[in-house]
Amino acid sequence: MLPYNLDHVAVAVADLDSAIADHRRLFGVEPLYREVVEDQGVEEAMLPLGGSFVQLLAPLDPDTPVGRFLAKRGEGLHHIAYAVADIEAALSHLEAEGAVLVDELPRPGGRGARIAFVHPRTFSGTLIELVEGEE
Amino acid sequence: MLPYNLDHVAVAVADLDSAIADHRRLFGVEPLYREVVEDQGVEEAMLPLGGSFVQLLAPLDPDTPVGRFLAKRGEGLHHIAYAVADIEAALSHLEAEGAVLVDELPRPGGRGARIAFVHPRTFSGTLIELVEGEE
Repeated sequence: MLPYNLDHVAVAVADLDSAIADHRRLFGVEPLYREVVEDQGVEEAMLPLGGSFVQLLAPLDPDTPVGRFLAKRGEGLHHIAYAVADIEAALSHLEAEGAVLVDELPRPGGRGARIAFVHPRTFSGTLIELVEGEE
Repeated sequence: MLPYNLDHVAVAVADLDSAIADHRRLFGVEPLYREVVEDQGVEEAMLPLGGSFVQLLAPLDPDTPVGRFLAKRGEGLHHIAYAVADIEAALSHLEAEGAVLVDELPRPGGRGARIAFVHPRTFSGTLIELVEGEE
């Protein structure tokens, strides 16, 4: 179960427009696209950086996982995402290795990707997302 | 000032050997190299993932920036690093844009890279490293 890319690293932000404007001004990076992902309660903007993306992630509502993260910890690094070819195989492998899965089954991510989260208890306090297909 | 790659994302860990073993077991990823960077008070292991790296970062001593991060926040995502072609030009641009620089001048990173950190106050609570040259 080898991830073949660091698909993205996500930053939780309070205001997506202002975070996009800040990143443009500071680093000259433009979003490739932005999208509301209702299933996760977020709007996300994907900033291409070489072969990966920085994902800016704003909650649609305070009572969502990212909304609660912001209330508790403030803005900042939220998760990293590994691209995998077969998300079911990856989840089975992780489960067999004793990983704590947030999602036992894949659910919809941005742009039709299939995603699943692995609980930060599994690896060094780090929330890891698996992504199959483009996100 | 366009970063041309997401060079790496760094995870602060308490025990480098055990974090490497966990990542190998869970994700089948091996370090390309590991290195002590005295100037930063860390030992780092670089796990290649497509065009980027996951960097596992362990403090050499509790009284180092990463040691204090672990004491305060525990293990977890620590910073993201943007590859730039000209680190002095990037720092001048950021300073002109009102960024809060941790390092006004580049300092040595792993494998002879030149690096500088930008304070998390600058962009959404996110510690950003600039890297010129291979790290």
